[in-house]
Amino acid sequence: MVPPNPGHAANPSLRRQLASLLVVRGSGHSRDGQRRYPRWELSNGELRRLLEQGVGGVILLGGSAEELRLRCAQLRQWAGQPLLLCADVEEGVGQRFEGASWLVPPLALGRLHGEDPERAEGLAERYGRCTGRQARRLGLNWVLGPVCDVNNNPANPVINVRAWGDTVPAASALAAAFLRGCQAEGVLACAKHFPGHGDTSTDSHLELPVIPHGWERLEAVELPPFQAAIAAGVASVMTAHLQLPALDAERPATLSEPVLTGLLRRRLGFTGLVVTDALVMESISAQHGPAQAAELAFLAGADLILMPADAEAALDGLERAVEAGRISPERLQASLERRQRALALCPAEPTPASLETLLAQLEQLVSPQDRALAAELLELSLETHGGGPLPMGPGVNLIRLDSQLNSPQLPARAPALLRPAAAGYGARLLDGLSPSPWSGDPDAPLALERLGEGPVLLQLLVRGNPFRGSAGGDEPWPAVLRQLLAARRLAGLAVYGSPYLWQSLRPLLPPHLPAAYSPGQMPEAQALVLQRLGLAASALEGGFTD
Amino acid sequence: MVPPNPGHAANPSLRRQLASLLVVRGSGHSRDGQRRYPRWELSNGELRRLLEQGVGGVILLGGSAEELRLRCAQLRQWAGQPLLLCADVEEGVGQRFEGASWLVPPLALGRLHGEDPERAEGLAERYGRCTGRQARRLGLNWVLGPVCDVNNNPANPVINVRAWGDTVPAASALAAAFLRGCQAEGVLACAKHFPGHGDTSTDSHLELPVIPHGWERLEAVELPPFQAAIAAGVASVMTAHLQLPALDAERPATLSEPVLTGLLRRRLGFTGLVVTDALVMESISAQHGPAQAAELAFLAGADLILMPADAEAALDGLERAVEAGRISPERLQASLERRQRALALCPAEPTPASLETLLAQLEQLVSPQDRALAAELLELSLETHGGGPLPMGPGVNLIRLDSQLNSPQLPARAPALLRPAAAGYGARLLDGLSPSPWSGDPDAPLALERLGEGPVLLQLLVRGNPFRGSAGGDEPWPAVLRQLLAARRLAGLAVYGSPYLWQSLRPLLPPHLPAAYSPGQMPEAQALVLQRLGLAASALEGGFTD
Repeated sequence: MVPPNPGHAANPSLRRQLASLLVVRGSGHSRDGQRRYPRWELSNGELRRLLEQGVGGVILLGGSAEELRLRCAQLRQWAGQPLLLCADVEEGVGQRFEGASWLVPPLALGRLHGEDPERAEGLAERYGRCTGRQARRLGLNWVLGPVCDVNNNPANPVINVRAWGDTVPAASALAAAFLRGCQAEGVLACAKHFPGHGDTSTDSHLELPVIPHGWERLEAVELPPFQAAIAAGVASVMTAHLQLPALDAERPATLSEPVLTGLLRRRLGFTGLVVTDALVMESISAQHGPAQAAELAFLAGADLILMPADAEAALDGLERAVEAGRISPERLQASLERRQRALALCPAEPTPASLETLLAQLEQLVSPQDRALAAELLELSLETHGGGPLPMGPGVNLIRLDSQLNSPQLPARAPALLRPAAAGYGARLLDGLSPSPWSGDPDAPLALERLGEGPVLLQLLVRGNPFRGSAGGDEPWPAVLRQLLAARRLAGLAVYGSPYLWQSLRPLLPPHLPAAYSPGQMPEAQALVLQRLGLAASALEGGFTD
Repeated sequence: MVPPNPGHAANPSLRRQLASLLVVRGSGHSRDGQRRYPRWELSNGELRRLLEQGVGGVILLGGSAEELRLRCAQLRQWAGQPLLLCADVEEGVGQRFEGASWLVPPLALGRLHGEDPERAEGLAERYGRCTGRQARRLGLNWVLGPVCDVNNNPANPVINVRAWGDTVPAASALAAAFLRGCQAEGVLACAKHFPGHGDTSTDSHLELPVIPHGWERLEAVELPPFQAAIAAGVASVMTAHLQLPALDAERPATLSEPVLTGLLRRRLGFTGLVVTDALVMESISAQHGPAQAAELAFLAGADLILMPADAEAALDGLERAVEAGRISPERLQASLERRQRALALCPAEPTPASLETLLAQLEQLVSPQDRALAAELLELSLETHGGGPLPMGPGVNLIRLDSQLNSPQLPARAPALLRPAAAGYGARLLDGLSPSPWSGDPDAPLALERLGEGPVLLQLLVRGNPFRGSAGGDEPWPAVLRQLLAARRLAGLAVYGSPYLWQSLRPLLPPHLPAAYSPGQMPEAQALVLQRLGLAASALEGGFTD
């Protein structure tokens, strides 16, 4: 049994209305013990109590497609009212939910856009359709994408390859194409992070970045992709936790009335849902308690409050603000209506009544078209160098990745492990928790004697990711390449993820050295890259089709 | 669409009968790309085709409880006939399927049996009930346990802590108690590996072990737990891939008529199902093709053929043997009847028609009693040494585990990571793929300079596991302990898994040094061990209750 609501209930219907404007975080897994991020993900007890009190949305991460399908049905059952169920599936639903389509990061299409804008836009729209359709079939009705930030700072640790472009035309056209595709499938899209998070080298998950640009520059670079998204009918916009002194000297965009109401609503004419980025992030929560943060965001112009540090406290704060007249009944009503309109636009797919129907739907989740799209994106974004196959081992397959623990990039059957093994290359895996592989000599940084004998295939699975505090390029890989070349031990290079890292290494390679790059890090990307390095498929990979 | 059966169909009804005696392997995940062991796990296309041809059983591994529930429903839908669905859930269903109860390995109760046999037997029966009930609720009807081998060889790489005892009385009483509990829940149990796999130091997954014991010794040590299981009404017995020259100079037990028919059926009077261990294992498949292996096993006395290297070829072989008169119609009929009797004894739980019922059943999968059992097992098997809390860091949290990739022991929220981190101990993770942590000096084997400064908390998550080829004790941990003590850097020791490793290290510890051992490796075991080392719970662990 769930305990009765212990919160305020002076005005239960008001509190329920306000609750509908909160979006809390849950795990896509069913059980508390399975949560990957228990710091942010509510327990089932908390989640159920909040949904019964009228909380109107949940952001989900983690679990398989099957688990997500059941989870969405469960949450709607607990809530007993229409919910906004969303996820950060910017790179296909498979980015977060295993078994669905996992596509190369958007920036890959940004690159193509410079050469062939029409093809790039067509692919971005299919990318949106694939993501929207799979999200809907699994029970979501809101995709937290596209990223509309222009990634014009290669050191950006938080946006990076998540952006649709590093130029304004690419980011604008492709973000708009993605959202058209997604919304055509009956799923709300979300342009983020307003007014533009591309040009920062600090991570807003950890501290508040400052964007020093003036109004002219914002109009020329940061705003156009959002204007394009609004023109394309995007249903929602997510705010950025950024300080923009040119717009508001006092408050970050998420809490800024000049930014959300003055600029986004009035000047850009956006009439859809405005949702904050997660209020639990350090850049907000270090300065404001959950009640104050929720009230300030709402007063600034947000309709929905995402991931408050404490949902009850956020509700208390909003309730007090309404009762004290700081939030007017009209303003509250406007947000409630915007939420209703969005829900009416993209109602959740009904949960199938029978298990048989559910199973059939799940079997058809990934269509042949989805598979073709994933493969086409991989092919067009592949970059190769040199030629000739890798020499046969024994040798060392040196892999650097962000984290070995629960790494979806590197299941036991990963081509990055299996193919070099078949050629005699024994794996050495490095992440931030490994014993140091470094020698202390900046000119010859790898302690080669700790890694084994023979030629070295270097595979780098790094990219800018939130919470990393870096774009993944802060280890001395150029010096490692020089060291391995001087020792005549570099057999091949594979880079997965960061185009900036690839660009910094490629000029160092001798003309014939086999090397390749994919923006994707998934097993399919590894298969393609290693194919080009002359490593044939291993039977153990198990194939990628159902 | 699935292509029509390309196999022989000279006698379709015979082939269908024979197919019902095969048990093939699938993944608990739904999609081909999610398979963890594609070398052994059939693709969905193959699985579906074989089930439509009448294949009568599937052994499943991997996935969450939710995924398994859907998977079992899907397989039964494909088959259109009652199936035997089984799994190697010797340590609770949560050992293989995330979210269900994961219990300490059986050998922990073997230890208790010496002191308090009544309590140990009561717990083993509850262990069987917990495992059987959760298996049934998820769609399985056959648990491939209890291990009836007496683990009287600490170097045993394949049985080890999976056994219910290292003495004959413990193994006999506890294996019988487990299977009574399991079968009381309506799920078939399986005594394995006949006639006894405890006294071997080679791994039958890799090569064929030879057991040189004579008949008297077998009667005194190896056979009693199987006799106890048969007396307790065990529904099935699994054969061992072992050579026992005293019983059969020519063939391994799995293919031996003297062992399976002479000893098991006639002398021990077993009337239930005899199932082979996986025929795909090297110790069989290196000597015999799939057709020959299946025929020999069946002729020796097996009813069910588990994991043939090639199911179609195995069917071909069995069909030819029947048509040539080497397998008599009576013999075939007897096996079919034994399978029918077993199915009638433990029919699968009907798949709920509505999703609502399914969700409710899944929510109730782990009962408060199950949680209490898991906690009691952890408490009683904990061993501690010394006292006093760990010194505060900065220090090094050095963890050795079997594999970081897809390690259910070490999710991001693992207490083994989070609790030392909160005390200032930075994690260093070692597995077989890490850069070498060794110095080359046998007296001071760790290259301490590669691991960081400060006191070292050493955590060893190792145990004997199949396919490892060792019982996990082949690294110089005693010398490491001496080295760290000599350098005054040993802050604490935590051993998870191998009692033999703990027994070899404990005598080296100074009296006050904080240290603890749990036979379990799951996060709950880490929480308990580290509690005793003075490391309090971190909020990030997320709790272990739903």
